[in-house]
Amino acid sequence: MRYFHFCKLPGRVMGIRLLRFTSVVIIVLLLVAGALTALLPNIKDDKMPSLRREPKSQSQSALDSFTLIMQTYNRTDLLLKLLNHYQAIPYLHKVIVVWNNIGEKIPEEMWNSLGPHPVPVVFKVQTVNRMRNRLQNFPELETKAVLMMDDDTLVSAHDLAFAFSVWQQFPEHIVGFVPRKHISTPSGVYSYGSFELQNPGFGNGDQYSMVLIGAAFFHSGYLEDFQRQPEAVYALIDETQNCDDIAMNFLVAKHTGKPSGVFVKPVDIRNLEKDTNSGYSGMWHRAEHLLQRSYCVNKLVNIYDGMPLKYSNIMISQFGFPNYANHKNKM
Amino acid sequence: MRYFHFCKLPGRVMGIRLLRFTSVVIIVLLLVAGALTALLPNIKDDKMPSLRREPKSQSQSALDSFTLIMQTYNRTDLLLKLLNHYQAIPYLHKVIVVWNNIGEKIPEEMWNSLGPHPVPVVFKVQTVNRMRNRLQNFPELETKAVLMMDDDTLVSAHDLAFAFSVWQQFPEHIVGFVPRKHISTPSGVYSYGSFELQNPGFGNGDQYSMVLIGAAFFHSGYLEDFQRQPEAVYALIDETQNCDDIAMNFLVAKHTGKPSGVFVKPVDIRNLEKDTNSGYSGMWHRAEHLLQRSYCVNKLVNIYDGMPLKYSNIMISQFGFPNYANHKNKM
Repeated sequence: MRYFHFCKLPGRVMGIRLLRFTSVVIIVLLLVAGALTALLPNIKDDKMPSLRREPKSQSQSALDSFTLIMQTYNRTDLLLKLLNHYQAIPYLHKVIVVWNNIGEKIPEEMWNSLGPHPVPVVFKVQTVNRMRNRLQNFPELETKAVLMMDDDTLVSAHDLAFAFSVWQQFPEHIVGFVPRKHISTPSGVYSYGSFELQNPGFGNGDQYSMVLIGAAFFHSGYLEDFQRQPEAVYALIDETQNCDDIAMNFLVAKHTGKPSGVFVKPVDIRNLEKDTNSGYSGMWHRAEHLLQRSYCVNKLVNIYDGMPLKYSNIMISQFGFPNYANHKNKM
Repeated sequence: MRYFHFCKLPGRVMGIRLLRFTSVVIIVLLLVAGALTALLPNIKDDKMPSLRREPKSQSQSALDSFTLIMQTYNRTDLLLKLLNHYQAIPYLHKVIVVWNNIGEKIPEEMWNSLGPHPVPVVFKVQTVNRMRNRLQNFPELETKAVLMMDDDTLVSAHDLAFAFSVWQQFPEHIVGFVPRKHISTPSGVYSYGSFELQNPGFGNGDQYSMVLIGAAFFHSGYLEDFQRQPEAVYALIDETQNCDDIAMNFLVAKHTGKPSGVFVKPVDIRNLEKDTNSGYSGMWHRAEHLLQRSYCVNKLVNIYDGMPLKYSNIMISQFGFPNYANHKNKM
């Protein structure tokens, strides 16, 4: 009613008209905008990794979880035992089993009959029994993080959850439970070993220059990088059926210019080798195993035209776990 | 002689003259330049920190060494005992003693009579006995790294050398030997404490959110930053004669957006309080000490308008020190 009243006011009719017109335009625009907003689709794209913890749906977000890659040869009993443990590890996204039992059927039927399982498990059938099969850039790999485990190694869920959190703080490093080192000798020839070798001589205590990938987290990008290694690296690994882990440490050290690994001291790590019925014991029992690894270090130095490995003496443990006594001072 | 010969050649006299003239000019210029270069002073400015290790001259390079800042009150016997130990720590550049014994003469005569000493020791006489005196931006401070020690705390040289190397890898953090934490309660009021408090509840094990500066390395830049804190922070520290270390942790956490500290587990750390003849025991024996620190946490949250402290559960130890058994697996 005021509307008509305003219309008739003499002397201000022009101004009022303009005001009315402008008001109408504004109101119409607001209504249109409101309508559009209501029509917008809900932004909920499942392919976008969420940045914060979402309520648990089918699978964990690719940023907050990792993929377990486990290569297996002639120890299916151990594999299945370990899978029961590893399939339930927190933050696990998927398991990729690299099946090096050439010509042998994967236990898919049995696996499915014992479902449901906490996460998808993919069996990748291989055509040749190669140590470096586990270093392929598997298309099933969706996460940034890879956890690689040997098929005879049992690491507790606590250790894995902690090491994963450490990896997230050091994503360009191999974060794992088994440290090793190289030392140089006056002749220039390198040797590979562990605590039994002399310390490299940088201050007191020991140093490590590698973290073995048979029990470690690393960035999936390094599997991509590994596909671009010189042929000589593949030839070396195939010739020895060994040293893929040393090669990975060379790759990472070269890439970062820093020590390749970060050692996390495990609270509970076990080797289940003795428990297998297959009678098969791991490659590291071969007489020439350690000599081979020294040989690999020197070959890789040739291929890389230099020694990229660097030393570290940082050992990481979990504060106050298993109990607070692990950090109490004698103060 | 060829000179005169050229002069007399007919038909090319003009061109030759120009060539001769140009040559003379060039030669003269070169001679002048050579003379000037010989006259340039030797670039050896002692005030410029060198970038790499120089042969040990008077002092260690400012990048590869640290300054010890030790505040002292009423425990000169302990101070002198500790100085004998700390003055010989590797990578130490200089010692700054913050003399809170107001009106009392510094032991300079005695100190000098017992020289020479491995590094310069500067006694900074204070006018008021304040806890935060040690957090001044001392002009004598030349290094990027500061080691701050309480005047009753003895940390072994091994621990210090290792923690310094850790600080160099985490220069924006407070790297030290004494972890503490805050917890929040349903009422929103924070509490301060150590292992005796409940865990903050992020997975298993404990967490820490502060590393005390009474036994820690940190970047000297933070002393600069501390001069720009709100007045309320100084008032709080002066009111309680406490909490300067909590305030520093708030500062660092706010600055980095990450946990302020990195905890290095000491092998050998001792409190020498009992050994003093002065009969004076540290502030932390006061009945209200811990309550005061909870009070400080809440006051600082008000001043900072939020809680910047973050949790960490990373505990760092030195690989293979004191002996290699500290990293052997039960594998």
